Amino acid sequence: MRLSTLFVRTLREDPVDAEVASHKLLVRAGYIRRAAPGIYTWLPLGLKVLGKIEQIVREEMAAAGAQEVHFPALLPREPYEASGRWTDYGDNMFRLKDRRGNDYALAPTHEEVFALLVKDLFSSYKDLPTTIYQIQTKYRDEARPRAGLLRGREFIMKDAYSFDIDDAGLDESYRKQREAYVRAFDRIGLDYVIVKATSGAMGGSRSEEFLHPSDIGEDSFVRSPGGYSANIEAVTTPVPPTITLDDAPAAHVEDTPDTPTIDTLVAAANAAHPRSDRAWTAADTLKNVVVAVTHPDGKREIVVIGVPGDRGVDLDRAEGSGQFGAGEVEVEPATPDDLQANPELVKGYIGPTLFTSDGAQAVLGSEGTSGLRYLVDPRVVSGTRWITGANEHGRHVFELTAGRDFVPDGTVEAAEVREGDAAPDGSGPLEIARGIEIGHIFQLGRIYAEALDLNVLDENGKQVVPTMGSYGLGITRALAAVAEGNHDAKGLIWPKNLAPADVHLIATGKNPDIVPAAEKLASDLETAGVEVLFDDRPKVSPGVKFGDAELLGVPTIVVVGRGLADGVVEVRDRRTGEAENVPVDEAANAITRRVTA
Amino acid sequence: MRLSTLFVRTLREDPVDAEVASHKLLVRAGYIRRAAPGIYTWLPLGLKVLGKIEQIVREEMAAAGAQEVHFPALLPREPYEASGRWTDYGDNMFRLKDRRGNDYALAPTHEEVFALLVKDLFSSYKDLPTTIYQIQTKYRDEARPRAGLLRGREFIMKDAYSFDIDDAGLDESYRKQREAYVRAFDRIGLDYVIVKATSGAMGGSRSEEFLHPSDIGEDSFVRSPGGYSANIEAVTTPVPPTITLDDAPAAHVEDTPDTPTIDTLVAAANAAHPRSDRAWTAADTLKNVVVAVTHPDGKREIVVIGVPGDRGVDLDRAEGSGQFGAGEVEVEPATPDDLQANPELVKGYIGPTLFTSDGAQAVLGSEGTSGLRYLVDPRVVSGTRWITGANEHGRHVFELTAGRDFVPDGTVEAAEVREGDAAPDGSGPLEIARGIEIGHIFQLGRIYAEALDLNVLDENGKQVVPTMGSYGLGITRALAAVAEGNHDAKGLIWPKNLAPADVHLIATGKNPDIVPAAEKLASDLETAGVEVLFDDRPKVSPGVKFGDAELLGVPTIVVVGRGLADGVVEVRDRRTGEAENVPVDEAANAITRRVTA
Repeated sequence: MRLSTLFVRTLREDPVDAEVASHKLLVRAGYIRRAAPGIYTWLPLGLKVLGKIEQIVREEMAAAGAQEVHFPALLPREPYEASGRWTDYGDNMFRLKDRRGNDYALAPTHEEVFALLVKDLFSSYKDLPTTIYQIQTKYRDEARPRAGLLRGREFIMKDAYSFDIDDAGLDESYRKQREAYVRAFDRIGLDYVIVKATSGAMGGSRSEEFLHPSDIGEDSFVRSPGGYSANIEAVTTPVPPTITLDDAPAAHVEDTPDTPTIDTLVAAANAAHPRSDRAWTAADTLKNVVVAVTHPDGKREIVVIGVPGDRGVDLDRAEGSGQFGAGEVEVEPATPDDLQANPELVKGYIGPTLFTSDGAQAVLGSEGTSGLRYLVDPRVVSGTRWITGANEHGRHVFELTAGRDFVPDGTVEAAEVREGDAAPDGSGPLEIARGIEIGHIFQLGRIYAEALDLNVLDENGKQVVPTMGSYGLGITRALAAVAEGNHDAKGLIWPKNLAPADVHLIATGKNPDIVPAAEKLASDLETAGVEVLFDDRPKVSPGVKFGDAELLGVPTIVVVGRGLADGVVEVRDRRTGEAENVPVDEAANAITRRVTA
Repeated sequence: MRLSTLFVRTLREDPVDAEVASHKLLVRAGYIRRAAPGIYTWLPLGLKVLGKIEQIVREEMAAAGAQEVHFPALLPREPYEASGRWTDYGDNMFRLKDRRGNDYALAPTHEEVFALLVKDLFSSYKDLPTTIYQIQTKYRDEARPRAGLLRGREFIMKDAYSFDIDDAGLDESYRKQREAYVRAFDRIGLDYVIVKATSGAMGGSRSEEFLHPSDIGEDSFVRSPGGYSANIEAVTTPVPPTITLDDAPAAHVEDTPDTPTIDTLVAAANAAHPRSDRAWTAADTLKNVVVAVTHPDGKREIVVIGVPGDRGVDLDRAEGSGQFGAGEVEVEPATPDDLQANPELVKGYIGPTLFTSDGAQAVLGSEGTSGLRYLVDPRVVSGTRWITGANEHGRHVFELTAGRDFVPDGTVEAAEVREGDAAPDGSGPLEIARGIEIGHIFQLGRIYAEALDLNVLDENGKQVVPTMGSYGLGITRALAAVAEGNHDAKGLIWPKNLAPADVHLIATGKNPDIVPAAEKLASDLETAGVEVLFDDRPKVSPGVKFGDAELLGVPTIVVVGRGLADGVVEVRDRRTGEAENVPVDEAANAITRRVTA
């Protein structure tokens, strides 16, 4: 490649719409250009890097025994209708009609048609297992496309799907893909953590995300010193031991005027109703939050969630908890209308139990007078004692004891996760970090196969439903994540395996021997199989050439310039800045050894 | 590749919607599967062939100095609005709105955004020339998707665009692309003729199509023994010499009752008004056809076209004639309303001139009483004499002489082209054939650059508009054309450069040595760099294995079977059927030599 003719122009200024480094630098260095919000054009150098990532992923897929196919981006409505996702995807899916008025989607993901293809081709357990994949352009009409390639509306993914006759087979297929991801990201040169994940809209069981740790990532995850990691939605709460009910003091209802917040309630409790053993804290209060759950079938349910008062309810965690069934669940705060429709709920004083002169009566829970399901944080084990609403305005109940005064319908992982919380596996306190999701692998199970009538005959000639795995790897997002994690103030710094060239060769200076010497060096390197980006532009100042080399980010920069009079060329490492002079006659060999090492 | 695990299944029956051989065989052999009308999924073997075509095209583009980029398929409305094609494309363009209500298209072609990208990056004549291209998925909402990949709605094209400062540069860029096409199609193994073409919706000047001759092709073209070729729209009519007006007899109007057709008119003329020198024929009548032309700007114009009565008017040729301006023109028969709105036109008796007692008066032509433009076939030169309508019911005029009794507004290439017509370059009589359009190269000129405000500074610091070329090559269509041109009753027969494997190795028979021997041969071949498709399926009959090998179409079929007892394997040529026995010890070397020859 010769910079004098290469279709690239660098920019001095950051694009006005760019907020993150990868976006700014990929545009400034002429790797991509914006075509529309969240939609990019690839220029020659960007396409080269993209091709290298695709090649690595292809090789690792082949090594894992996956076979490549290619589906259309434009797909008819029917398969998505069968799986329920035509509706579930909502505004995130680009939809259109053809000239005959038939509905089509620009596919955001391809589970359905992969299952249909296997149904089309296969009929026997002997055909399984199989894993097929594609590297393909996908579409999502993001509400807020942002951060350049990191959240685009047209992007490239590798998506693989495995088909197995039984769960043991799925585990094995899953393991192979997981290992392929590890190898691929290692080769790409991308740091990652593998975190437990919930399966979200997809249903299914085992699920892990590959996150590239980055402050600008959209995903929060936790990790412990002992090696536990999970995304926030998937963190499970260590369950404390139950406490004997024998010693629990009796519950008592008290007037608690002017306690609109947990803090004022705790202060009032310690002032008016102090406990003998230790002071009340926010963690001793039980906050009951009313939420509206929209189930996958569209049904809307009002549910009350009880969490310790020192924590908020994290609606994303509630959605990912699996407590509301597989498929796309939406959990939102209840509306004033919802509260009005449930008059048992006394706003600000909601609690599981009402004490009257007739005795205690359940309010929350499917057996309670409200009939609303009552789910509690896993910390609310039998024997724990709480201050909570008394279901009467201005009054709270003290020492309300779980397992004695109320019995919830179950537990839910809905309380917010905090820095310093204990890891569920005992591996220490959690740290919260942010990451960019670059891969997601999960066990779908039989949900799609069932929806699409995919069956095969087993050994006994009986129809059985195969179980599926789904494995996504964001190709364009991985490229952006690499740029995000590999740059400095001057520009990009590509890892060796992804760089658009091995060597950025600069010819600069007035000595008439320089250009011919640089031409010869370029040619010798190319003959040796080294990819050279040769800045042969005449009449461009050394400053501009050095600046462009640093912006473009090829790992090794070679300068044929002033030193040539002394018989040397300069070989500089883009990442460390270290430079050495090499005799011009040995340069081709020395550089070839360096870049192929 | 092992057939026991390969994601492929062959079909015995042709798909019900398939009419042409390539469609039937590509589906039956498991290369592609239909996802929706005109939309296909690529299975592993199909994807391999596709990749080989793409690789050849990439290499030839690189050799021609073109640089690869990649545009989105999903593009905003604005650039198409600027060029006028948002409207021109009509129903052929898939359109959609995003969640904010903005208009987008699935790009059917990318002239506009290529021009905008060059505008974004370049500003000086020093940046030119440049040719950039992409291999990309395109969308057209065809009214009648047909013939499998030959006319699909989602398909892959290579589209290149050149940018030059002047016409000489464009000629050179065009020449380079043309040569790259020749080399690419030669390597792909696809017969083609290069025909002169009109530029259709695109505007511009020089234009050629690469057609693969095939009876099922949608394009008609002509060729002469002397080497002239053109598509029907682009055929020009040899212009006869003019004839002196001195000897022309006077025009005379005659009653011609009961002559509803050209044939009856000619018979009546010869009966009632015979010519002394030779009989009247249909070619001596001048048929005046009223058409409605919709111009690129949407304006509708009624025009009268005069052609010799032995030929029809070919509306496609009229549209492609360039007579109605650059851009998308539609020419349709005039409606009864159009005729009513132009009372000078006496249906069945339309002619250029009306003879009354006051003398001759022009009816057709911009100077005529109708005010309608009158365009004639190039054969209607000055001095030619005609029988034509007298603009009075039941009457015709005889010996109406061009250049004396009427002067048309110009000529138009609108008469149908017939087998046996003379080639315009004198190279003999034309033969009409059909072909599949696999490439189209043309000189766009400055129409897009002007519409999109693409300017660069010339040597004198003056803003100038670059001139563009556009070069399309249908990748998926070329694959189908190869299949169409390379098959027999048993299946596909891939040319060497495109085959999904070099060797189709079959192990068959009960001899326990067979499978190990075949395994070893496969491994030896693969070590030598030969691509092997190994049919290692146990319990599959020899008949099925041979049938599949012939259907799949790998050029060399190797059978390790009964002959192994005698120390030989069979090596068979898929195309010729010729087979020879090769000693098993020498087989790997012999086959390697054969497939790399």
